[in-house]
Amino acid sequence: MIILGLDPGLGTTGWGVIAAEGNRLRHVANGQIRTDPSAPLPRRLANLYSALIDVIRTERPDSAAAEEVLGNTNAQSTLKLGQARGVVLLAAAGAGLHIGEYHPSTVKKAVVGTGGAEKRQIQAMIGVLLPGAKVAGPDAADALAVAICHAHHRASAAGMMRRVQG
Amino acid sequence: MIILGLDPGLGTTGWGVIAAEGNRLRHVANGQIRTDPSAPLPRRLANLYSALIDVIRTERPDSAAAEEVLGNTNAQSTLKLGQARGVVLLAAAGAGLHIGEYHPSTVKKAVVGTGGAEKRQIQAMIGVLLPGAKVAGPDAADALAVAICHAHHRASAAGMMRRVQG
Repeated sequence: MIILGLDPGLGTTGWGVIAAEGNRLRHVANGQIRTDPSAPLPRRLANLYSALIDVIRTERPDSAAAEEVLGNTNAQSTLKLGQARGVVLLAAAGAGLHIGEYHPSTVKKAVVGTGGAEKRQIQAMIGVLLPGAKVAGPDAADALAVAICHAHHRASAAGMMRRVQG
Repeated sequence: MIILGLDPGLGTTGWGVIAAEGNRLRHVANGQIRTDPSAPLPRRLANLYSALIDVIRTERPDSAAAEEVLGNTNAQSTLKLGQARGVVLLAAAGAGLHIGEYHPSTVKKAVVGTGGAEKRQIQAMIGVLLPGAKVAGPDAADALAVAICHAHHRASAAGMMRRVQG
């Protein structure tokens, strides 16, 4: 199964693709999509959407995953993030992908083993879990992390199903 | 000139189309796009996008307009609105439309004459400014209001241009 992890943002959206075969994970590709802060908002959203559609066409994932957003006290930041996230989810849904959403602490736990892990611990573990991956930046690392989380949850859901069906 | 006004929302997005010929305005169509609250978020965004693309294909506007969003203290509400707004702006930008954005008080001033007007005053004035319009609901009324605001601003910008070039 090919999994596309997504870390949406208006300025930079991280994406990461992994292949999950049983319990084994393999890095496929990752990158960061930047939009021009001096361009009008609708143009930035259209550029983000189009770049992400290109990634989906090239990588042909079977499934997608993104972190849940808690939002913060700065309404304008939350609004910007929301607008980018809407477009990112639309690109994935439009390609017929199911999108798993995970709480940030669930992602940290899946990658580092503790829900309170710091950002740099996550980046270090990406190197361990996906050896050979050259990570484009912190947003691409977060995208790979949520893809890994999705792989773990799908594997354990499948394992549970096998036990139940026995 | 055909103007599409937009009032984005995840639950309900209002839209309104008017024709502006010089200083004269004519109602063309309006409606509200609802998404199923029990459906997953990416599906709701995809349904909203697809319904809006249909409106744009049918009405063939020359230009679009939306209110600026100030955001509020509830981060989850702002995030929901942001996700819907991102998809709405994308639909308009993807169709090649320029999108005017107006502060809520500018819209109220354009329609009622005062920036502090109440919602029901706006709805009453829609009936006066666009006689014969059957308005689908409060979100469609807000969408028509921002379309009217856009028409006024374009007309005065054109007037200024004529005086400057005069």
